[in-house]
Formats: sequence, C-alpha cells, structure tokens
Amino acid sequence: MDKRWIPARAGDALADIDTPALIVDLDRFDANIERLMQSVAGCNVRVRPHAKSHKCVEIARRQVAAGAIGVCVQKTSEAEPFLAGGIADVLVTNEVVGARKLANLAALAARFPAARVGVCVDDASVVELLGAACDRAAARVDVYIELDVGHDRAGVADPGAAVALGRAVAAQPSLNLRGLQAYFGSAQHRRGVDERRRAIESAAALARATRDALAAAGLPCDTVTGAGTGTFLLEAASGVYTEIQPGSYVLMDVDYAKNEQDPLWPRFDQSLFILATVMSRRHDASGDRATLDAGLKTFSTDSGPAQPAFAGWTVRGVSDEHTVLDRIGDGPALALGDKVRLVPGHIDPTVNLHEWIVAVRGGRVEAVWPVDARGAVY
Amino acid sequence: MDKRWIPARAGDALADIDTPALIVDLDRFDANIERLMQSVAGCNVRVRPHAKSHKCVEIARRQVAAGAIGVCVQKTSEAEPFLAGGIADVLVTNEVVGARKLANLAALAARFPAARVGVCVDDASVVELLGAACDRAAARVDVYIELDVGHDRAGVADPGAAVALGRAVAAQPSLNLRGLQAYFGSAQHRRGVDERRRAIESAAALARATRDALAAAGLPCDTVTGAGTGTFLLEAASGVYTEIQPGSYVLMDVDYAKNEQDPLWPRFDQSLFILATVMSRRHDASGDRATLDAGLKTFSTDSGPAQPAFAGWTVRGVSDEHTVLDRIGDGPALALGDKVRLVPGHIDPTVNLHEWIVAVRGGRVEAVWPVDARGAVY
Repeated sequence: MDKRWIPARAGDALADIDTPALIVDLDRFDANIERLMQSVAGCNVRVRPHAKSHKCVEIARRQVAAGAIGVCVQKTSEAEPFLAGGIADVLVTNEVVGARKLANLAALAARFPAARVGVCVDDASVVELLGAACDRAAARVDVYIELDVGHDRAGVADPGAAVALGRAVAAQPSLNLRGLQAYFGSAQHRRGVDERRRAIESAAALARATRDALAAAGLPCDTVTGAGTGTFLLEAASGVYTEIQPGSYVLMDVDYAKNEQDPLWPRFDQSLFILATVMSRRHDASGDRATLDAGLKTFSTDSGPAQPAFAGWTVRGVSDEHTVLDRIGDGPALALGDKVRLVPGHIDPTVNLHEWIVAVRGGRVEAVWPVDARGAVY
Repeated sequence: MDKRWIPARAGDALADIDTPALIVDLDRFDANIERLMQSVAGCNVRVRPHAKSHKCVEIARRQVAAGAIGVCVQKTSEAEPFLAGGIADVLVTNEVVGARKLANLAALAARFPAARVGVCVDDASVVELLGAACDRAAARVDVYIELDVGHDRAGVADPGAAVALGRAVAAQPSLNLRGLQAYFGSAQHRRGVDERRRAIESAAALARATRDALAAAGLPCDTVTGAGTGTFLLEAASGVYTEIQPGSYVLMDVDYAKNEQDPLWPRFDQSLFILATVMSRRHDASGDRATLDAGLKTFSTDSGPAQPAFAGWTVRGVSDEHTVLDRIGDGPALALGDKVRLVPGHIDPTVNLHEWIVAVRGGRVEAVWPVDARGAVY
C-alpha cells in the first residue's frame, strides 16, 4: 500500500500512534536479545537467529551487533533485503525447487559475492539444477543437507540418503557443502519440558550418526544447524549442533507462553504488541462490549486470536477488521477511542501482515522500522 | 516487498507462474459477476460490491462496468486506491474513530470532490468530530447510521437511538445523512437456508421500523444498505433494503461452499485459487507425502486451511511457508516441482497477504492485477 500510511514518527507519544499497529517495547526487546546471547555464552555454538519471525533488517542488525553470525530466512525473496541491508551470512532454511526459483537464488548470490548465501536440499535432481544455475550465474552457494529429525515436512530420512546427497553436492564445483540442517520445528511447541527434551535427544542422535557417516565418506560437515526458541539450549548442549536458529525469542507470542517453562531457560518477555483502538462501545443489559479496529488482517489466528494484554476482558469474536471484547471481570474501563494492547497468538504470520513496526521506549516512539521482507513468499 | 518479485507476465503459460501465487480463473470470474447482476435484475436494489474481499481496483472496475454503483470498503486507507482508480462512490462500512483518522477521512473526501465518500456512525460524539473535521477540510461526506441487526459488533440497538443519532448528523452542515447500514455479517455463514432466512427477516424488520422512525422524525433515509453473498437475495426481496453489498461471490472460498445451497441462488463457482509448487516429496513405508511451498503467509486459516482443488490428498499440517499433504486415495501422482491448486478457506484475509492476482484464461496469463489495498488497515 501507499507508504504515506505510516502509523507514527519518531518522537510521537503513544497516544499519537495510528492503529492498528505493531509496537515493540524496546526495553524488553533489548533484554531478550541480551538474555539469549548470555544463555549460550558457555556453549560452543554460533547464533543465527531466524528472521522469518520479524522480517526486519533493523532487528537483524541489532542481533548481529549482539553477536549473531547472520540470519536464517525461508525464501529467496526474503533473503534479498537482508543481504541488501548488509547482513553478511544468510541461510535459506528451506528447499528451493524449479528452474526460475533456482536462477533467482543463483542471481542473488552472484549479486552479493562478499556475503555467504546458503540453501537446503533434500533431492539429488535439484542439486544438479542448482549447480548448473550457479555455474551460469558465476555464483557460489553454501549447501546444507536437510535431515528430517522428526518435523516430517522435508529432508532426507537417514544417514545413507544424506551421504548419497552429499556426494551429489560435492560433485558440483559451484556448491559448497557446509553440513546439515536438522530442525525439529514441531518440538518447539510441545508443551512439556520432558517432551521437548526427548524430541531433541532423538534429533541430536540422528544428526550425530549422519554427521559421522558424512565424515566416514570423506564429505565435509562443518556445521550442524537447527533449533528454535523452545529448545535451543538442548541443541546447544548436545555436542552435535554447532549453530542455533532461534527466532521468536526476540518478540514472543501467546503460543510460546503456553509452553511449560524450563527452569534452565532465560526469561523472554513479550515485547511485540498490537495497538488497537476501541471503535464501538456498548454497555447495556446485553453486557459490556468493546469493539477494536484490529482483526484478521492485523493478526493471524492459526494459534488462536490475539489476546488482550490486560485482565478483565475476553475475546468474543474476530472478523476481518474487528475484534469484539466482552467484559468478564474487573478489567479497565474502556471508552470509545481508547488505545489498547493485544498479544499476538503467533508472531511470524502476524508480523507478515504489517509494513511497519513502531519501536517505543519510555512512552515515546523511538523509531519506526520497515518490515522489509513482508510478503516475500517467492 | 520489492515490486520486481512479480509472479507472472501477461502471455505466460500456467507452468511459468512463480509460486505461491493467487490465480483467478477469468471465465468463472466473469460468470460470477454476470450471475449476480442477473439474479437481482428484477429487484429494486442497487449493487455495491464489498471490495474488502478483493482489494483490487481492476476487479472493482469490472464490477462497475457490469452495473455496480460503486464499492464498499472497511477502512479509510482502503478507500483511497479505489477513489484514485476512478470508482466514483466508495462507502466505508465501518465506524471511524479518533482525531487523526477523522482528519484522514475528511482529507480523502476533499481530495476527490467529484466522488461520493461515505462512512458509518454509531456514536454522537464522533458525529460532532466528523462534522468539524469535514468543515476544516471543506469536505462533504455521506453518513449512514449503523444499525445492529444481529451481528453484535457495532451499531445502535434500536430506532430511538437511530433517530437521536440522525438528528446529530443532520445538524452538521458538511454531513449528508443517507440512511442506514444494516449488515448482518454472521448470517452469511449460517449453514441452513432457513437459518439465514430467519436472520434476515429479523434484520429487515428492525431496519423497516428504524427507517419509518427516521421518516416520522423528518430525517432522510434514502438508502438502507447491507447484505452479503450468503443472503443478498433475501435483503433484495425484503422491500426495505435499497442496496446490497455482496463481496465473496466474485472469488468464493471453502467457507461459503459449506453453506446449504438455496435453490433460489445463482451458482457462484470458485474462481480464486492458490497456485503452489511441490517442493519436497517422500514416498516410502511411512506414507506418501507432498510438501508445498505455501503456508500461513500465503493463506489465512481462520476458516480452516486452504484445501487441495483435487481429490485424493488431504492437508496434514500447515506452517509458515509450507503445507504438508498426505495421499489418502486415488489422487493424482505428484512429483517434485509440480504446480497444484488450493482453494482458500476464507478469501478476504488470504487476498490481503498478496501483492498480485494473476488472471488466467485458457491456460494463459491474461493479466496481472495489483492488490492495490493490501495492508490498508488504517
């Protein structure tokens, strides 16, 4: 949409922010980044935060300034703004399939020769086409064999298949075999501490056997990368993973807050909120209802609707541009025009709905960050 | 995102469309528009399609060319591209609250003095501020009193409240009292024909009583507007509604297909699809799995995930950028790189995720339309 519709300017008061808007509490945001880095300071792992959750170059720069080696993304088009914004190591933690998509990836790598651009593979036919695309573009790409460690979405199933694929990668002069992508996505959201622990023990065992099989075949495997906010300390302590990919820790959401807390974990506070305005009120015999100007086009509901960041009100319904709240207790009085905060159910698809993140500190807007990779699905 | 990432060009074959992409089948699309207009040709109602479902100026132009008087939208920022694109009558079917938002609405109306710009109200304090904003901007705005006919989201509750609010509107020289917004949104998705019929009978009765009360008070009520794809023939036949607002009929989705069909209704065919690529395959003892390159950032799941437009495969899981399909019967063989169609669960928030709609006919891309109002939440 027209870039003139920007919700705030640096220096604005909170009350001046147009709604619905994403706002990030910078004190909490800074603390989340710091706590993540401190929590793995004693482990021999690099930190490569996943940028699919924030899609924002400014956030990536702050993660790198705190010690991250680069970022992960999910799509070639999503990689572009981060490379253009100076992030020197960008890994597409996903398969890229099809001639046009492979040519786009090779062209992107050729455009940023000083940066590292990585991608995952799980099929030998794609390796050959990727090598040819990189040859034509005079590009070099880092390649990671995706290993299916339990997520059951993509990846080869066992060490033997990984070795066969590794040989195919090694045969391509423009491809640089780096190692294994071993991400157990669904384990991040298993509620119990023990469930998460068992899942990552099994993932690490398969990753170890596969790494050893690659080594026995004389193939390089410098990197075993994976992990998310729900499990990263387990991978970091495994002795197998050399790199972790947490994404949600910096912003957080309702879904992650449902996990049983592991006492070993650092505390990550909710830093991202949706700011919405009360645009209709009713208070009569039928109840006490406040309707907000934020709905399905402002937050995703795949992990449930956004939730009020205050007590005493509950979500009755969500439609395209509205959330209807019912008063259920001693919540704050809400008046027409009041601005309230909601906590997103799932940040990744929620952030993707927005052009801007309004960064606030001490009741003032400190900056307005573009969501550079919004809509980057190609 | 960067506008260079465009999924297709006119003249491309279907196989050349980059994925994930929205594609519209133009033969079905044209037929849906035609059938809607024919179905109400004998009724004394104007057609004002809701553009929140497609957000696309080119689609609005085709609706107007077929006889629509203009469009509805939900937000001021959503109205802008339609006014700039030459749609001469745009109604914001929603309340606008807050000084900045009211000033934006007045400025927009002032910028397009030859067009009609309308908005809904349900609170007298807002009427006064809207009038003042229009005075300052030298703008005139059409105003509709929103009546809560059962949707229970916004609107005044009864004829008495509507008359009081109507007097407040009439007292503002820059506001043009047009009548009533009487939309029963949730009735569109009640599954049974009789349930929908009873809901609209009750809505029409309240709208009639309110219209008569406004007339008795000497207030104008030229227009009673409302209705959607699930009920519009009922409002059109009510003798009260003078205008209908169907939106989904032109593209359709899984959710509307779940309604019990009313034999009186025209047939609206699914015309909008998500085109996705098979980017990982597994076929072994664990089953037959195809993973697609389209997920929560390509379609909304508030009415369930997108569904395969072909038999024999079922959705096992959806994540940010993936949909995993399991083979459950004699479906088509799917190979790595194949492009397949999905039917969106709910079009409005799905279209809002995309920059482009690829219009196809006879196996070729005929045009690529921008989703002009994508992200227009302000």
